[in-house]
Amino acid sequence: MFPSKTYIDRRARLKKTLKSGLVLLPGNGQSPMNYADNWYPFMQDSSFLYYTGINGIPNLYFIIDIDNDREILFGNDATPEEMVWTGAAEPMVDLAANSGIASVKPIKELETYVKQQTKKGQKLNYLEPYRADLKVQLAELIGIKPAQVGENMSSELVKAIVSQREIKSEEELTEIEKAVNTTVAMHTHAIKNTRPGKTELEIAGELQSIAIGGGGNIAFPIILTKNGQYLHNHATQDRLAEGDLVLCDCGAENAMGYTGDMTRTFPVSKRFSDLQRNVYDIVLDAHNAAVTGLRPGVPYKDLHLLAAKKLVEGLIGMDIMKGNADEAVAAGAHTLFFQCGLGHMMGLDIHDMENLGEQYVGYTPELKKSTEFGLKSLRLGKALQEGFVVTVEPGLYFNPFLIDAWRAQGKFKDFVNYDAAEKMKRFGGIRVEEDFAITAAGSRLLGEPLAKTASAIEALKNS
Amino acid sequence: MFPSKTYIDRRARLKKTLKSGLVLLPGNGQSPMNYADNWYPFMQDSSFLYYTGINGIPNLYFIIDIDNDREILFGNDATPEEMVWTGAAEPMVDLAANSGIASVKPIKELETYVKQQTKKGQKLNYLEPYRADLKVQLAELIGIKPAQVGENMSSELVKAIVSQREIKSEEELTEIEKAVNTTVAMHTHAIKNTRPGKTELEIAGELQSIAIGGGGNIAFPIILTKNGQYLHNHATQDRLAEGDLVLCDCGAENAMGYTGDMTRTFPVSKRFSDLQRNVYDIVLDAHNAAVTGLRPGVPYKDLHLLAAKKLVEGLIGMDIMKGNADEAVAAGAHTLFFQCGLGHMMGLDIHDMENLGEQYVGYTPELKKSTEFGLKSLRLGKALQEGFVVTVEPGLYFNPFLIDAWRAQGKFKDFVNYDAAEKMKRFGGIRVEEDFAITAAGSRLLGEPLAKTASAIEALKNS
Repeated sequence: MFPSKTYIDRRARLKKTLKSGLVLLPGNGQSPMNYADNWYPFMQDSSFLYYTGINGIPNLYFIIDIDNDREILFGNDATPEEMVWTGAAEPMVDLAANSGIASVKPIKELETYVKQQTKKGQKLNYLEPYRADLKVQLAELIGIKPAQVGENMSSELVKAIVSQREIKSEEELTEIEKAVNTTVAMHTHAIKNTRPGKTELEIAGELQSIAIGGGGNIAFPIILTKNGQYLHNHATQDRLAEGDLVLCDCGAENAMGYTGDMTRTFPVSKRFSDLQRNVYDIVLDAHNAAVTGLRPGVPYKDLHLLAAKKLVEGLIGMDIMKGNADEAVAAGAHTLFFQCGLGHMMGLDIHDMENLGEQYVGYTPELKKSTEFGLKSLRLGKALQEGFVVTVEPGLYFNPFLIDAWRAQGKFKDFVNYDAAEKMKRFGGIRVEEDFAITAAGSRLLGEPLAKTASAIEALKNS
Repeated sequence: MFPSKTYIDRRARLKKTLKSGLVLLPGNGQSPMNYADNWYPFMQDSSFLYYTGINGIPNLYFIIDIDNDREILFGNDATPEEMVWTGAAEPMVDLAANSGIASVKPIKELETYVKQQTKKGQKLNYLEPYRADLKVQLAELIGIKPAQVGENMSSELVKAIVSQREIKSEEELTEIEKAVNTTVAMHTHAIKNTRPGKTELEIAGELQSIAIGGGGNIAFPIILTKNGQYLHNHATQDRLAEGDLVLCDCGAENAMGYTGDMTRTFPVSKRFSDLQRNVYDIVLDAHNAAVTGLRPGVPYKDLHLLAAKKLVEGLIGMDIMKGNADEAVAAGAHTLFFQCGLGHMMGLDIHDMENLGEQYVGYTPELKKSTEFGLKSLRLGKALQEGFVVTVEPGLYFNPFLIDAWRAQGKFKDFVNYDAAEKMKRFGGIRVEEDFAITAAGSRLLGEPLAKTASAIEALKNS
């Protein structure tokens, strides 16, 4: 973890923003797989982690009582019998001290404390839970139904946290870069070790082992598929063959919880086919155009639309689309081939702070998140600021269901040459994704450079 | 999956046992990591899987309406927009047909159906949920508080399911054996690739990649540690060094959800030290004695106590314990070094059916599960039957906290030479675990044989 001063400063700023009230930040519990005691790998809640630095330990609650200037970590010390199973556990007072938290209380005192203080008129600020166990616990703690827990969440707390967590400090950038470098190692391995006859799952497993060896784990389920046209398609037992194009979107979370997120698309054969290379170059051009535009003050939505335009121009060059590129993008015709967003914020979460609500994280009161197909999947629209960390990940996805459905509906027929699009129904999908920190001057690529052009990927593959 | 006949027959037997009522078997949902849409790898509920064979698809519910002889799979077909993200999804009617289920309804009709039938007087039989999301859903469905969901579960359904799932068919044994063979491959890799300078996590990651490459995943969090004296200690970023003893307890789940579970303990150096080999041989003798006793009719608790006696005899031979071995075991003195149980059932769950309750799964109305330290961790006590699959996993664990605590309390001082025990406080722990099917004649080792004696492990390590 960082020195305690980091966490003390973060909390001081949160208190200054909120001015009064009680802030409740619950850490995550264990998540059962198929019975109560068989758990998925523990993942800490990112806001709890941001303000306390305590990772790897389930069932903690943190209270910041702003009015009474108290910070209390609620949790139970391991019993001697628990230590038979888990070994030595750090005492709660030491855990708290590492974060500069003065006070520790057992879990059973949490309810009393919250009830006592709210009875005195203090507002309880909490975030909407994304896990059902916490929803049930909060419902009991507050004395409301689980279904009401969401509507009672504190938008003031959300806004205060977003305004802090969206700006990454230098020490955070260092940790993110570690995670990105593990991610680079995963992709390097994938490009070099993908061969005909291997299954998607075999390669995905090898990548996960690199993430685990890095001291953390994967930050999200690995996408490694010859069916890259389906955006969240995961690895299967399908065997890869000559001619297949593999889309690999994966990222590591490091020991401190910071993440990396990259995508490469590469051939199973030694070289891209001409058609694969043509489409690859269109996506790479769009990627580079968007990257060039990264700088403080630029609305990320503008870069999304710029990338969309570049993709459309490329498709017009291939006779798959037609007409005027600006008009096509304005009409939304590009979403037949680019159904999602250009990117998202990244930090302690891979889609950073997604649990706090995309309107709060990626948009502003003046710039509402769209509900249109395509733009509704753009998680970040607002103007960039120095210290933001974002992904840039345009792509082209030839989804046969969508091509068939929209052709049948006659949708965008002024912009799409459906006969040519039909021929791409077995092509797959291509995405190129990297991670950037926004700087005063523009942006900085995070992590060691990884082969990005079609030629560089072929060279790495055959090295 | 198995042919539909397998699932039709399983359901027919369940209906015959229960005679009447409504059986609700919910499949699992996705489990969020750090926000709603970032999921852990999906794991299906094992009872749902047992009666339907449907794996890999979240948010399904299965109803067996015994009185009206109806079987209904509740679930929603993927929308075209969902297929943009996930690709083609098998239609619900096909999923149901594969399992021989005649009827399919959308999720929104589940509540109506259950309310309608229970109003007519049918009893709703369900299992106690181990995931909070299902607890909330059932509370809403039944119209009770989440806290009451457990107490309203059906013990008749539990007993009926246990009596079926505990006897593994030949087709199930074949699948279990596949999972065990992947588990053997994991252990072979661990023994051959553990070297000074590697971290525990690096090796654990490599093992997980083998499980994933096998088409499934790990069945439970990998234990790979130089601190094997702590029973559920997981892998860390600690680097292994010459002289360390590594305890590796891991297992694969295969594509159909069946599991394997094995433990080996091996040196980081090329050879065991004399002391390590002495303790290893004691554990192996206890393992072999228990295995020899496996046969229908033998209470597994007797084998647990037999293994405990063998361990005590070995420790008496090393002057770590003293007195009469039978008396030591009767007093519970062995639990200073063998704090857990000899093994458990294994099948679709690694601790098979643990979610149904250990009293129901591993004991009988006449043989209650003990609450004593040691025996309370024995998950299986009742008489073995042909078709059971069990693990046998005795061990010796030199837990410094427990040695210190019990010495201070003067506990079992007639049976323990605490001066000698003190000297073992940095030794670690040793466990040897394999999986067996109970046969008419005795038992059958599942999976390819894996190096088990100290000499065989050294030979494999240096091969």
